[in-house]
Amino acid sequence: MGSFDDRFLRIIGGKPEVVPAVANYLSAVRTGNLLFVSGHGPYKDGSYRYCGKAGGKVSLEDAYQSARLCAINCLIAVRSVIGSLDRVKRIVQVHGFINSEPGFREQPAVLNGASDILVEIFGEQGRHARAAVGISELAFDISVEVEMVVEVAPDAGR
Amino acid sequence: MGSFDDRFLRIIGGKPEVVPAVANYLSAVRTGNLLFVSGHGPYKDGSYRYCGKAGGKVSLEDAYQSARLCAINCLIAVRSVIGSLDRVKRIVQVHGFINSEPGFREQPAVLNGASDILVEIFGEQGRHARAAVGISELAFDISVEVEMVVEVAPDAGR
Amino acid sequence: MGSFDDRFLRIIGGKPEVVPAVANYLSAVRTGNLLFVSGHGPYKDGSYRYCGKAGGKVSLEDAYQSARLCAINCLIAVRSVIGSLDRVKRIVQVHGFINSEPGFREQPAVLNGASDILVEIFGEQGRHARAAVGISELAFDISVEVEMVVEVAPDAGR
Repeated sequence: MGSFDDRFLRIIGGKPEVVPAVANYLSAVRTGNLLFVSGHGPYKDGSYRYCGKAGGKVSLEDAYQSARLCAINCLIAVRSVIGSLDRVKRIVQVHGFINSEPGFREQPAVLNGASDILVEIFGEQGRHARAAVGISELAFDISVEVEMVVEVAPDAGR
Repeated sequence: MGSFDDRFLRIIGGKPEVVPAVANYLSAVRTGNLLFVSGHGPYKDGSYRYCGKAGGKVSLEDAYQSARLCAINCLIAVRSVIGSLDRVKRIVQVHGFINSEPGFREQPAVLNGASDILVEIFGEQGRHARAAVGISELAFDISVEVEMVVEVAPDAGR
Repeated sequence: MGSFDDRFLRIIGGKPEVVPAVANYLSAVRTGNLLFVSGHGPYKDGSYRYCGKAGGKVSLEDAYQSARLCAINCLIAVRSVIGSLDRVKRIVQVHGFINSEPGFREQPAVLNGASDILVEIFGEQGRHARAAVGISELAFDISVEVEMVVEVAPDAGR
């Protein structure tokens, strides 16, 4: 049985690249057993992918991949704070902000890109409460921003 | 003195109908004494009501009713996880995402539809922190989406 | 060494003016050691400042000041519940909803107005997880709305 962390590293196929926080905030903050993760975009290899509005320049399929990549970046942030995804007890809440072309209403299908990878990695413990909303502008014209609340183990190992 | 749960059942006038979660997420997730409830729309008897943008096709009065129905669906989700609303200790936080016609700025008055029913049921324990924001698109063109964080009793009864 | 509360009072240069909650909600709600703070706008001396959309009528510089003022109002709410900012253990999460002109994508730079004052007051304990999103409408046409989650000390003093 592979661990959460093994599964994650296998999925991303390499070394996690931490997205730099460029101001007076942190990529994730722990309080008690809860880890609040900052909003993350579809950043990979030094730049944002899938830019543009979902339902416009960005297809539903690409927006799904965009949400998946956002979730991966959230998990990299989790990992950078608690050391290993094996210390995740469960994913509690996920918010997806979908940069939406007027009339585009597939926000839940887009956010499935995040939800699906969370269950792929964490199984039942990856199932979470969520909200998917269509908004009008995001920094760098990214198509999706995802943030999370994660319950982590009180101790270091599992 | 009626219980929270009695009051709720009297208000909705019947058997709670759980809104089906149609993907890899849950309607509500508990961590410690906190219950994070997914964003819920104005779903009733198998379909979404009050569709369209607040301030456009949907009047302020209907948007208020829409937010009220969203809150009811959140509470049905709470009930499905903890069994009875009598185990609610307090409503902590409410987010209202209001699908808004350009120039419509009555988001707080819309979200009062959710806030009012929470106080109607839970009294002072129903008063919560909240944010009401006007967004540009929601799934199914629903007028309002509401999510909550609820503090629940550590034990089963009250 | 000045306390958080002294620093805050010095920055706002006077007596904190609590923004009235005008409906069935509260400016902040405590559950355990977490304080959930309602969305606050750039209210000062009885009215909202910096009204209009960021990137449109409101310049980036003014939107930054607007976010700073929102954060100040959040802290006034925190103070009204726990008595003194010296009881803040850390700022956990900040959400910034930026009322954005179409094509405006400087939401993170706007929200820095909130992030910067939090670090100015609380130092490392002021660094937080955050999300900045561009939305289409806010009540009173305010340019920014900010909400927070704050970890507070279990006891009264420090």
